Amino acid sequence: MGASAMTREFDLIARIASRVRPRRDVALGIGDDAAVLDIPPGHDLVVTMDTLNTGIHFPPETDPASIGWKALAVNLSDLAAMAATPAWCTLSLALPDADAAWLDAFLDGFLALAGQHDCTLVGGDTTRGPLSISVAAHGLVPHGGALRRSGAQPGDDVWVTGTLGDAAEALATWRATASLDGIEPRQRERLERPTPRVDTGARLRGLATAAIDLSDGLAADLGHLLAASRAGALIDPQMIPGDADLVHRLAGGDDYELCFTAPAQHRATLKPLATRIGHIDATPGLRLNDGTPIPRGWTHFA
Amino acid sequence: MGASAMTREFDLIARIASRVRPRRDVALGIGDDAAVLDIPPGHDLVVTMDTLNTGIHFPPETDPASIGWKALAVNLSDLAAMAATPAWCTLSLALPDADAAWLDAFLDGFLALAGQHDCTLVGGDTTRGPLSISVAAHGLVPHGGALRRSGAQPGDDVWVTGTLGDAAEALATWRATASLDGIEPRQRERLERPTPRVDTGARLRGLATAAIDLSDGLAADLGHLLAASRAGALIDPQMIPGDADLVHRLAGGDDYELCFTAPAQHRATLKPLATRIGHIDATPGLRLNDGTPIPRGWTHFA
Repeated sequence: MGASAMTREFDLIARIASRVRPRRDVALGIGDDAAVLDIPPGHDLVVTMDTLNTGIHFPPETDPASIGWKALAVNLSDLAAMAATPAWCTLSLALPDADAAWLDAFLDGFLALAGQHDCTLVGGDTTRGPLSISVAAHGLVPHGGALRRSGAQPGDDVWVTGTLGDAAEALATWRATASLDGIEPRQRERLERPTPRVDTGARLRGLATAAIDLSDGLAADLGHLLAASRAGALIDPQMIPGDADLVHRLAGGDDYELCFTAPAQHRATLKPLATRIGHIDATPGLRLNDGTPIPRGWTHFA
Repeated sequence: MGASAMTREFDLIARIASRVRPRRDVALGIGDDAAVLDIPPGHDLVVTMDTLNTGIHFPPETDPASIGWKALAVNLSDLAAMAATPAWCTLSLALPDADAAWLDAFLDGFLALAGQHDCTLVGGDTTRGPLSISVAAHGLVPHGGALRRSGAQPGDDVWVTGTLGDAAEALATWRATASLDGIEPRQRERLERPTPRVDTGARLRGLATAAIDLSDGLAADLGHLLAASRAGALIDPQMIPGDADLVHRLAGGDDYELCFTAPAQHRATLKPLATRIGHIDATPGLRLNDGTPIPRGWTHFA
């Protein structure tokens, strides 16, 4: 019943540790009871933790490298929404069996994304169980600079990064065909290898008034931002960027783009980073510009 | 497939958040994309993450309050072994169904221990899946003061806190009787509600040369410390504290006591905190004082 029951039969942790090249601020990384990290002066620590379970958060037939990528991506996306710069992460990996090839492929995806953002894997554990991946991600932001959901003000513009709805269309195809292979490659990439908008998030410091990442769909997540800000929004569905059907752009999940609000004075600065889709007003709730109200928490597949 | 598929049907996160009273250094806790934390100047951040899966790390019939307690305890024990003081934690909870009474009882145990150590739950997520609990725990230690596994020196004494083997005897009874009810109450308490030695760990700063927590058993975990320190140890089995059979004191897991090393000059200071069981020497490996070698990684149930 020991915590390392699995590592006794197969040294997964050593296999993971051998592939990690720590940042200079990692005083002690994988291999002790805990990691020791140097926090630079003048910064706040930003922490998030999300779990992906097979069959719930990704199709069971997803390749291990994509699972590794996505498990980190959804966490880095949370850091991005806070305008934090990733620094370190921990990984708890439950595996049904000790499969070295699977682990190596998983790490290919996980560490490729970690490397892009100089985010060092500093600890965690491996256990036996149905495939499940928990990641805690740690980022840094200049003191007081983190973006929250709660700062939107009437009159602010509402913006989204990238394009929306591709992952939802990919999932719809997967559900209809019972196969990942029938999905258009660009949409499949969006579903399996989302790009956390870390650089954009950091550039929003001092410009945006509120931000959230889009994991459950624009309608649901912007709804969270509005509730936290005690405000409403009017959006133009024609302005929601992307080629996907409107229902997918508005209510499909798994985009991992950012939705944020900012005063109109920053429009010129923000235009290269995102698409303006509407504005905040004082009437609670989310409405389309033809007056259609969007129910709180509405998602296409709910 | 959204990350909050479960919270749409039952607002577990709100239920959790309503019970948390944050420390003053929590700038932003549960309810945004991530938590924001103030790190005091002159401190290092210490981070650990461990997962408990049902049937692997605890008997499936364990009561939810004990599961909650233990899920945090095993992480605080890791912080204790680093001489870190707990500050914040995150929780990722996979549940087979949204059972409010189960969650409330789980939180009773988790938050009771968190409260004892002023460790604020600042984030995480809930997902649907076989019962699994991942916790990331964050502690603070004065800069450079974290204890590692690697500092033991020949001539140092070897110490352990508390008593060993009770949890292993409890597990042995559970295996033999297929019931938790037949376990002697004190042993059952040790198995289900281990006490992380946080206060002792902090008092070891500046005294101990190396430390590790005992999750897999003294033989296995002291073996890790010796390997990290490139040293050996000679221990007197009669000195290993506790009433349990020697095999359980030496090789049983789940004690969550601390094993540490310290120069002989600190004996008088350390005597109230722990029991001295042997000393470090330069011959690699772990031996009993009659010369019997203990195999690396030996555990009773392996």
